[in-house]
Amino acid sequence: MSEAPKDIEDLVALMARLPGLGPRSARRAVLKLIKKRALLLIPLADAMQAVAATARECLTCGNIGTTDECDICTSSKRANGELCIVEDVADLWAMERAGIFKGRYHVLGGTLSALDDVGPDELRIPQLTRRVQEEGVTEVILALNATIDGQTTAHYIADQLDPMGLTVTSLAQGVPIGGELDYLDDGTISAALRARKAL
Amino acid sequence: MSEAPKDIEDLVALMARLPGLGPRSARRAVLKLIKKRALLLIPLADAMQAVAATARECLTCGNIGTTDECDICTSSKRANGELCIVEDVADLWAMERAGIFKGRYHVLGGTLSALDDVGPDELRIPQLTRRVQEEGVTEVILALNATIDGQTTAHYIADQLDPMGLTVTSLAQGVPIGGELDYLDDGTISAALRARKAL
Ligand SMILES: [Zn+2]
Ligand SMILES: [Zn+2]
Repeated sequence: MSEAPKDIEDLVALMARLPGLGPRSARRAVLKLIKKRALLLIPLADAMQAVAATARECLTCGNIGTTDECDICTSSKRANGELCIVEDVADLWAMERAGIFKGRYHVLGGTLSALDDVGPDELRIPQLTRRVQEEGVTEVILALNATIDGQTTAHYIADQLDPMGLTVTSLAQGVPIGGELDYLDDGTISAALRARKAL
Repeated sequence: MSEAPKDIEDLVALMARLPGLGPRSARRAVLKLIKKRALLLIPLADAMQAVAATARECLTCGNIGTTDECDICTSSKRANGELCIVEDVADLWAMERAGIFKGRYHVLGGTLSALDDVGPDELRIPQLTRRVQEEGVTEVILALNATIDGQTTAHYIADQLDPMGLTVTSLAQGVPIGGELDYLDDGTISAALRARKAL
């Protein structure tokens, strides 16, 4: 990238670290930003600074919000006894877009993975059993990706919750094998939630 | 996107306008930015502000630099009589990465397009004939994309330059180095066959 001024090289290098952008698309993106300085580049820099200043993880569920407890955790309407377990915030957003789930969430922050050396303590699993007891949860819905690691994690959590005498279900029908929630349309997610089965 | 705080929704919407990122990959990118606040989000916001403050188009050639005249236009070493015409700055960067062209550039800012109503005056074409005369250009190299609009533009420029008595060439079309025929489109193979040379 020695063909561009250093400021621009630096920006291309940072942009290329975003998921979905390689070096070539990062260069294209930066050129578009420079062309649309007032309409895109400056608003984007401002929006990033705003998010850097305000965004934080909900201390209870791991959702991204602007306060220590997210809107869903503080809303008494969402305390219906249902707790939906997702791998990450993108999956929580996908569930919310589907608009059919009215309970609360618990964001694990990943899946168990022997290969990547991720155990229960690296995820938000110890907090889960505490929440289930303290919040009067009656049903835990496992909305993990239909990948091997996702399903291993689902079974591990189901085993942990087994002695606590609550209903544990998982999204089943409608989620294709190997499919990730965030790729699915809203209707598929709704159908899978309605058809959830006891484990 | 009503599932996320407004600051984050705004950032996702702006990111989704970048080439190569759709709504889904914009959401993934923003979540990664939030996770890597100190290492990625803040440096990226700072880099964007630096570029917004310094980047500008070279008044002569259309390259992106930090001064009214870019490094290539101000370098006397690059005044070798060769002028390379490219569609946009990304193509100029690609030529510079190849490292073999030692002359100067002229960035058109697009191609002629009847469909999109782009005529010569929308591009940096009027300035081209002026430059050719003032800078003692002896050879114009047309490095436009091998698309219909690119080739239409190349022929238009060649016609404009015809009365000026200089050499007008274009990049050879053919099989890329290391390219396997089986992977190439028919147009490339046809062009390579038409341009075949005696060994
Ligand atoms: Zn929360
Ligand atoms: Zn220049």
